[in-house]
Amino acid sequence: MTGVVDRPATHPAPGVGAAEVTIWEVGPRDGLQNESAVVPTATKAAFVQRLVAAGLPVVEATSFVHPKWVPQLADAADLLTALAADEALGDAARDLPVLVPNERGLDRAIELGCRHVAIFASATETFAQRNLNRSFEDQFAMFAPTVERARGAAMRVRGYLSMCFGDPWEGAVPPTQVVASGVRLLELGCDQLSLGDTIGVATPGHVRALLTAFADAGVGTDRIAVHFHDTYGQARANSYAALEAGVRTFDASAGGLGGCPYAESATGNLATEDLVWMLEGLGVRTGVDLDALIATSRWMADQLGRPSASRVVQARS
Amino acid sequence: MTGVVDRPATHPAPGVGAAEVTIWEVGPRDGLQNESAVVPTATKAAFVQRLVAAGLPVVEATSFVHPKWVPQLADAADLLTALAADEALGDAARDLPVLVPNERGLDRAIELGCRHVAIFASATETFAQRNLNRSFEDQFAMFAPTVERARGAAMRVRGYLSMCFGDPWEGAVPPTQVVASGVRLLELGCDQLSLGDTIGVATPGHVRALLTAFADAGVGTDRIAVHFHDTYGQARANSYAALEAGVRTFDASAGGLGGCPYAESATGNLATEDLVWMLEGLGVRTGVDLDALIATSRWMADQLGRPSASRVVQARS
Repeated sequence: MTGVVDRPATHPAPGVGAAEVTIWEVGPRDGLQNESAVVPTATKAAFVQRLVAAGLPVVEATSFVHPKWVPQLADAADLLTALAADEALGDAARDLPVLVPNERGLDRAIELGCRHVAIFASATETFAQRNLNRSFEDQFAMFAPTVERARGAAMRVRGYLSMCFGDPWEGAVPPTQVVASGVRLLELGCDQLSLGDTIGVATPGHVRALLTAFADAGVGTDRIAVHFHDTYGQARANSYAALEAGVRTFDASAGGLGGCPYAESATGNLATEDLVWMLEGLGVRTGVDLDALIATSRWMADQLGRPSASRVVQARS
Repeated sequence: MTGVVDRPATHPAPGVGAAEVTIWEVGPRDGLQNESAVVPTATKAAFVQRLVAAGLPVVEATSFVHPKWVPQLADAADLLTALAADEALGDAARDLPVLVPNERGLDRAIELGCRHVAIFASATETFAQRNLNRSFEDQFAMFAPTVERARGAAMRVRGYLSMCFGDPWEGAVPPTQVVASGVRLLELGCDQLSLGDTIGVATPGHVRALLTAFADAGVGTDRIAVHFHDTYGQARANSYAALEAGVRTFDASAGGLGGCPYAESATGNLATEDLVWMLEGLGVRTGVDLDALIATSRWMADQLGRPSASRVVQARS
């Protein structure tokens, strides 16, 4: 390999054209929360800064989940303070989304001046119990005051919905159940849903079917993001199907960091580089500088002492 | 993971419907020729037999490329003799495709009673020189008598065309050049073209553009197969785009074995299991028994002493 091909050729696809896409970078939160190593706060801050500098329009910074459950992000307040003091970020540091599991998490986000938070709900009963320690029904009661107060504080609120395509305990998850759960999150006041394929079992027709079911319920792709995992190697194919169906916000994790700590097989967040490669080939604008992103993921892999899971990062090494 | 999800849910996609697809299994040839270990002939025979038993409709068995270049397949004649003697395969052993680089290779295939051969051409000048030791133009002169004699012997002849989406020395490869090359192979008498993304740089719009260019030249998807590599993680997305465009023959390698020995970065044939997972999710019929296929790839990984590259095989372990 002589390196002549370091970018895909550009060929727009029928029905997609020159779309513009927002990549919601989850590496610092969803990625690092699943690393066994605890990354120093200064390294996390540098990671976020480099991702922003590489053109990622949204970088989810951290989570206020209790350190007992996610010790890797126990420094959330320190990290946000460090980012708020960063000159390059400036006031935009307050727009970096932060996961808040409940009202206590929201209190901390408000204290630190955050303007964008996310809650994390489940589309299934079993995962609600295992991940949230709540029944499926009770999770909405828990989130209602959180979302209401966040909206009252003029915050943007994203609603993550997990297990949208399959659940390791319950098996297939019917689109009707996912739509009903998602509609409730929107009714609580979430401005965007992120539909998670937590265990990576979705395929392109399933993605289309779920998006159609949401459209039938009056929820258009303008309020939907997709969050694919590559457990069975389907994340790019599913992203392409979602793109064809009109989705314009895609979650991805730099270098493929992360997964879900409570679902053993849920390894393999979609790597941001592999998504950007596909989108660049399609002529879709992302604003991301692929070279800067690859350099960032390579640097983070060095910090973690293991190779990046991204195919693009590997191929370009 | 409790194993409740061992199959994708079935959701046909718009425009694809309940298609039927032929998977052209290249593991025993394209996979094993790239292994540093030389696999015993009896193991290769068992591999082919297990793939056929798992429902793969076409299994490319081996290659008559000179052992100086591909020592891993130096036992091609012995392997075909062993397969011809296999009771379960019976006369169908003669239909297993065999790669023939030139007339000498064809002579050996004829001697052994083969009814299906494949030639391996290049869409670019540089790769023709490096892989075939011929100029781009001279390769057609080399293949002409090979294909003519094969057709005269009532054989089916596939034409592999490599570097269809990018070349590591030349960079982007224009679709017009690929179409011109492919048309010449068809004019020589090939009944099917297999369009290879040898270095894995294709994206879905590029796939659609190339297929459209072939259609404009009068070559429909009924004479086209696609051969994707996963170097940049795009193989399933590209397969889905090809499926949407009407392609119904897909090359894949059990367990993701193989690549191309003359292009350093061309690691990662599309794993058959990962393709079957997507197709099953789409409700597309392949005739493949996924469990039997996974068991076969796991067994072959044990023979090779390393884990399978297939995400599905990994996830189901």
